[in-house]
Formats: sequence, structure tokens, C-alpha cells
Amino acid sequence: MTRQIHLGAFLNAGVQGTAGWRHPDASPKFLTADHYVRMAKILEEGRFDFAFVPDALSVPRSLGGSFAPAVNWGSGTPRLDPIPVVSMMAAATTHLGVAATVSTGYHEPYNVAREFATLDHLTGGRSGWNVVTSFQDAEAQNFGQRRLPPRDQRYGRAEEFLEVTTRLWDSWADDAIVGDKQSGVFGRPEAVEALDHEGEHFRVRGPLSVPRPPQGYPVIIQAGASESGRSFAARWADVIFCSHASLESAIAFYTDVKARAAAHGRDPDQLKILPAATPVIGRDTADAIARHEAFADLVSVEAGLSRLAYHVNVDLTKYDPDGPLPPLEEVGVEGHYREVVEFAAKNELTVGQIGRWYGARTEGSMVGSAGEIADVIEQWVDAGAADGFVIQAAHVPGSFDEFVTGVVPELQRRGRFRTEYEGTTLRDNLGLNRPGRGEWKARRA
Amino acid sequence: MTRQIHLGAFLNAGVQGTAGWRHPDASPKFLTADHYVRMAKILEEGRFDFAFVPDALSVPRSLGGSFAPAVNWGSGTPRLDPIPVVSMMAAATTHLGVAATVSTGYHEPYNVAREFATLDHLTGGRSGWNVVTSFQDAEAQNFGQRRLPPRDQRYGRAEEFLEVTTRLWDSWADDAIVGDKQSGVFGRPEAVEALDHEGEHFRVRGPLSVPRPPQGYPVIIQAGASESGRSFAARWADVIFCSHASLESAIAFYTDVKARAAAHGRDPDQLKILPAATPVIGRDTADAIARHEAFADLVSVEAGLSRLAYHVNVDLTKYDPDGPLPPLEEVGVEGHYREVVEFAAKNELTVGQIGRWYGARTEGSMVGSAGEIADVIEQWVDAGAADGFVIQAAHVPGSFDEFVTGVVPELQRRGRFRTEYEGTTLRDNLGLNRPGRGEWKARRA
Repeated sequence: MTRQIHLGAFLNAGVQGTAGWRHPDASPKFLTADHYVRMAKILEEGRFDFAFVPDALSVPRSLGGSFAPAVNWGSGTPRLDPIPVVSMMAAATTHLGVAATVSTGYHEPYNVAREFATLDHLTGGRSGWNVVTSFQDAEAQNFGQRRLPPRDQRYGRAEEFLEVTTRLWDSWADDAIVGDKQSGVFGRPEAVEALDHEGEHFRVRGPLSVPRPPQGYPVIIQAGASESGRSFAARWADVIFCSHASLESAIAFYTDVKARAAAHGRDPDQLKILPAATPVIGRDTADAIARHEAFADLVSVEAGLSRLAYHVNVDLTKYDPDGPLPPLEEVGVEGHYREVVEFAAKNELTVGQIGRWYGARTEGSMVGSAGEIADVIEQWVDAGAADGFVIQAAHVPGSFDEFVTGVVPELQRRGRFRTEYEGTTLRDNLGLNRPGRGEWKARRA
Repeated sequence: MTRQIHLGAFLNAGVQGTAGWRHPDASPKFLTADHYVRMAKILEEGRFDFAFVPDALSVPRSLGGSFAPAVNWGSGTPRLDPIPVVSMMAAATTHLGVAATVSTGYHEPYNVAREFATLDHLTGGRSGWNVVTSFQDAEAQNFGQRRLPPRDQRYGRAEEFLEVTTRLWDSWADDAIVGDKQSGVFGRPEAVEALDHEGEHFRVRGPLSVPRPPQGYPVIIQAGASESGRSFAARWADVIFCSHASLESAIAFYTDVKARAAAHGRDPDQLKILPAATPVIGRDTADAIARHEAFADLVSVEAGLSRLAYHVNVDLTKYDPDGPLPPLEEVGVEGHYREVVEFAAKNELTVGQIGRWYGARTEGSMVGSAGEIADVIEQWVDAGAADGFVIQAAHVPGSFDEFVTGVVPELQRRGRFRTEYEGTTLRDNLGLNRPGRGEWKARRA
């Protein structure tokens, strides 16, 4: 049997991309529940593994620290809290997984463990947590800090954060609840244990107030591309979300991270690597290219520069717009930066030209007919570059609708994608084992 | 026109009361979404103003610091995170308000402001926030502290917390979003402002990443009975939730808090006071008493002592069970404590007897036929003791079902309760004005 492809849907709780809201078909209802429920139903109809809601804890500040560009162009703002959004998407579906982004930088592990344990119970085991360490000064400044802490410090906190949350999920044995109305015995105290954790960042006594989640641990998603990020993801993550400008860099990343997982004693197949893809689907190649160009025209150059500044967490206005991009220290998201540098070098772009390109750019752009896009998806999976993709939408809900009615049936015809869900939990559908109690010991550094 | 009565439903995200799960009709599905969705539909059918989900951030520890009694008897545990629970309840309804408890002690104001702004948008203005400062050492110990901070410190933090959250809700003007696809102008930056708040507890730059909530501010609920609590609630709260053992103490509290609100320049009618009520409805008085007694038999004495210890945050085992309850310093919840002291003094109870009584006790117990319960509700409202009630359930969903099919039609026949919702937001239904931008200035100390 050919390898099955997994699909997630990248779906901002707010506006999409740099100018997604401007598309003629884009729904303006992005602050309503109906908007998200409608997309959840489309994605479940398309048998997607999960919807994935990214997050950032600020209005992006850029180009000299101003939030004006973000508000003016609707770039990266508004951004709703992902938890109520995915809760409502889950309430309207029965099989679709729902993954929410929550930062380890600006939350407490007890609250986060409880939030996801709750979501996992209420969804019958369909929840996922996208673990991020945050990357903007503007976020740090909403939580008492002047600047973003250095990456090592952020990952140190994340490491301890994951140890505490997984131990909290393990604080109740799977069979701790008895619920015998006759005798009055609700639970077995000997099956529940405290943590008494005392670490560098956290002191947490436990136990959690919520019984062990149906999935053992909700599905852990991570997107770190840096050395710290890869080491962290290879141990803790069930799913890695990434972004690659070329098949070659994707294969190198895939190979590296799977080897790291194996070196840590994990079955590499228990770690799914899903790069970003942004399909623009046309009747044929020419139609798709025309649609892609029409969409690029909606993006303002200023919004693009602002978005790049936001992604790499530095003010690019201080560099000569007609000069090349100089190397930057301590960038926010290494993956994005690496991609920009590669592309800028290859095409000999100035800072100004980079900004123009970055505004219209989408992650893992795939432009073509439904069949051509299915070809690329198959090619990447067969080349050992991906276990599937996280599909980004140029505009919503239209882009998801087009993918579900165009590309999904094509992949199904080729025997590469499910026509019915394999099971009831997100782990079932992703082909991931349910972690036993105590699994955290094998995952930590 | 006679004064209209407002109704909330007190609904644990987990098990109810000390032994609610043992009731023969109690649903064992308290970890599933269906359980909460079913109750939401019953409450909306009964035209309740809102469902109210309390919370605490620990498995209760009691009787010497052990969590074993709580697990053993299902008293105060499990307890799910309220946010996903109320999100799913809201997704299944169109008019019912949903109020979630979130502590100011162990969260960050930026996250909480964002969570409720999101919930308010997704529900179309049906959200409420029950503000608590937490009251157990067991909670403090899940967040790096050895002991609960003193009340003044907790309320100092809460005061600043509310100032920051309301300012974050105000950071976008109501008309900040333009959304002009043609020109590409998404929003008006001049209608969005940062806070640059630097206080004793928090430094928050802002603005919020979510536009101003439909209700301006989600409905603020508070339950403090202490001096600090009353001062806080009289200024910040739209709804006060309280508990009284007698009509007299309820009138005194009502009069005091409304006067405090007026002294602060508020219209006292814009602050709704809703005491707890736990109805046990029978065909007639005798039947109700029999049902009440049958239910009390389900409560173990140990669970009752454990619950009392949990509520007042002290270990009562160190006192002589055959002696009177000595005055306690710095108790957790003054309302509960006051009620216990009053009742114990009146009935000359020992510590052991108090424990026995407290286990079976419910807040604002109302035992009788539907008509008799409607009588008491009317009496309290007409006496100036309440603007309505928060109905607690002995067991779920049965107790809510009985109330909705028994007492609600009785109140409707008497012209005291709505037959259709007045409006679309929770503020509409509670008869509360929508706060304008900048309202926080009038609310703070």
C-alpha cells in the first residue's frame, strides 16, 4: 500500500495572510462563530486530519515599533484567542482534530495542561497543542518584559513546561475514576499522584484537577527550525509543522529530524512532518497563474515589509533599501529567515525588493490545476520530504472549499488519502500511538 | 409592572456539590461535551439569563493537606477548565449567556482580556467573566507559591488586573475596523491605542489583538463578601453572586452593596445581586422534604468536613470535634464562613456537628413544591434581598430540568419572568447598559 498522506489546515483566528481579507470571495465574518464552524464542516467533509490555529500574543509591531501598519492593512491582526475558536469548531464536528497554539512563554503550565486536558475530554480525544515559545518583542511587552528573552532561555522554559504539563496529564491513572453510586466511592486516591515539581522556572505541586486525557497526551505539534527547536521537536513533538522553499531543503530537514527522533529511541514514523503548502488552484496551469497574480496584486508593498519585519523581529527600515540584506543576529523565526536569505541570494534582491516579494509570498506556494497540485503533494511525500501538508488558505473559506472539492478527490482516487476517518481520536487518524502513563520520562532531554 | 427576576444557573464543569454524582438520576457523562450542551439547551428553553461555571485551580486538599478525600468522594474534583466548556455551550445556543470563572491570581491580564473578548465576539455578546481571587493554598501551590497571599494583596492584584483588562478591551474603538476591500484599508490606526501600563503588579503595553467586544465589556460577575470584596464588586461588578442563610442577612448585604455602588456614582439598578438558591422540588411540601432527605443521605460526613475545610482554607481537624468552632483568622471565603458561624451559634453546634451539617448543606436551600419555591423567589426579590437567583443543581441535568418545567412556568404565569429573551446580548437580557469606551476610569478605586 502506498504511503497515506496527512492533511492539516492552517487557519488564522482572524484575517488570513497579508491581504487574505481583501480577496473578493473572502468572508468578512471572521469575528463570528459561524465563520469557523463553516470551515470546520468543510474540512471534515474533506476528511482533513485537523484544523490548526496559529497564534501570537500581540498586535504585530513593525517598521520602527509601530502597530499602525498591522491595523491599517489587516496584517496579522485581529487575532482571536484560539481556545474558544477551536472549541466551537469541535462542537460542530465529530472527527476533525482541532489544534490550538499556546505559548510556553506567557502562560502557566498548570493552566495549559488543564485547558488541553479539558479540550481533549470534551472532543473525545481530538485535540492538539501547537507549542510555541513566541518570537516578538511586542509579545514580551504585553507580559512585563522589555524584550524577547534569548532563544536558549525560551527553550529552557519550554522544556520544563512540557515536562510539567505531561506529568500533570499523567497525574491521574487512566482508571482512577470508579464512580460507584452505591458505595459512594468516586475515585481511587492511590491512582492519583502529585508532582511536587520544583524546577528552574516552575514549582507545581499537582495533581491536575482533570483526569487523564482520552489521548493520554493531546497531540503535540511544534515548528522550531533552529538547533534548539529541532532538538525539542524531535523529542516532544508528534507532528512537526515547517516551511521550505525547496524540495531539497525539505528533504534535508525531514532526514535530520527523523534521525534525531530515532537517536532519542523513538520510532521515526511516530513523528509526522507536515510542511506548509498554499495551493492556488485553477482550471489549468495558466488559470492558476492568473489567479495567483491577481491575488498578489492585493498585497501592498508596505504590508509585506511590515510582515517580514514582524517575522524576523527586527526593524528593517534601518537598512539601505537598495542594498543587500545584511546578516541578522538572533532572528525570531529561523525557518523564515533562512528561506528569505536563500531566496534573496539566489535572485540578488535588495532589501526593498525582498519586502515587495515577501508581501505577496505564501508558504509552500503551489500553483496549478488540482491534478498538478496532487502531483506535487505526492512527489514530496514519495521523496521523503513530508508525511503530508498543512494547507494554508489564500482566502477563507473559499480556498479550503476549492481544495476539498478539487485536490482531495484527486488524492483519494490515487489511493493516497482517506475516504473515511480511520478512528475517533486525532492520534488514531494520524497513526500515532497513545502515550502510556509515564511517557514523559522518555521524551525529556 | 412588577420587577422582573433574573436567573443564572450554577453549573460545575465536573461533578456537582458534595455528592451530586451519586444521585440515581445524575448523568455520569460529566467529561463529555454532550453533557454541557444538553444543560445549555435546557437552560435556554427555560429562558435563563446565563449559565455560570465556577472554578478552582487545584484538586481540593483538606483534612491535613491530603487530596485523597476529594478524589475518594468526588467532592470538588474533577474540575474542567471553564472556557472550552462555556464555548461549547454557547455554540449550541443562540440567546443563553455563558459566564466562566477565571482567577486574577494565576493568570496574565493580556491573556484573560483576549480570552473573554474572543468569547464575546464568537457568542455575539453573550459572555460573562466571574472574577475570583482564589482562596486555597492548594491553588497557590500549583503556581509557584507556598501559601495563598493575604486577601489585601489578592485584591490589590485584582484591582490592577481589572484596570488592565478593561483598558485592553477599550484599546480598539468600536468603529476601528473599516474593511474596505477596494482601497485595502482594513482598520484605522488612530482608533486603536496602546496602554503602556506600568503598575505594581503588571507592565502591559497593548493594544489587545482583538477588537472591542460586542458588549463593550463582557458582563463582570463577582462574589466577594469581605470588606475588600464588597468594595471591589460595588465598583467593577455588573452582577454579584452571593450566598445567605437568612432573608435578613441578604437584605443587609443587598442594601449595603447597592449603597456602595451609588456612593461610587453608579446607578444601583445597574448592579444585579443574585444570591445562590438550591431548589429541591416535590409534588408537595412533604414530597420535597422526603427528596431532600434522601439526597442528604448520599453525603458522607467525611466529605462534608473536607468540603468545609476546603471552603475556609484551614485544617479543622486540629480543633476539638466536641468543642465550638473558634474564630478563624484570614479565612478563605468570608461569605461561607459567616454563614457557618451564624448557623453554628444559633444551633449551638460542635465542630463535628458542623461538619455533618455542612456536608449535606446546600447554598440557599429551597425545599417545596414549584409554587412554594416561586413564592420564596418572589418574596426575596420584593423584600429587597435579590434581583434574582443563581440556581444550583443538586444533580444534573435533572435539577435544572425540574426547575425549568416546574418553577419557570410558575414565575412566567405570575408575570415575573420573561417568556422570550429581551435582546441578543447578555447585557440586553440583564437590563445592563453597554459600557462606553473609557468606562474603566469610572470603575476603578
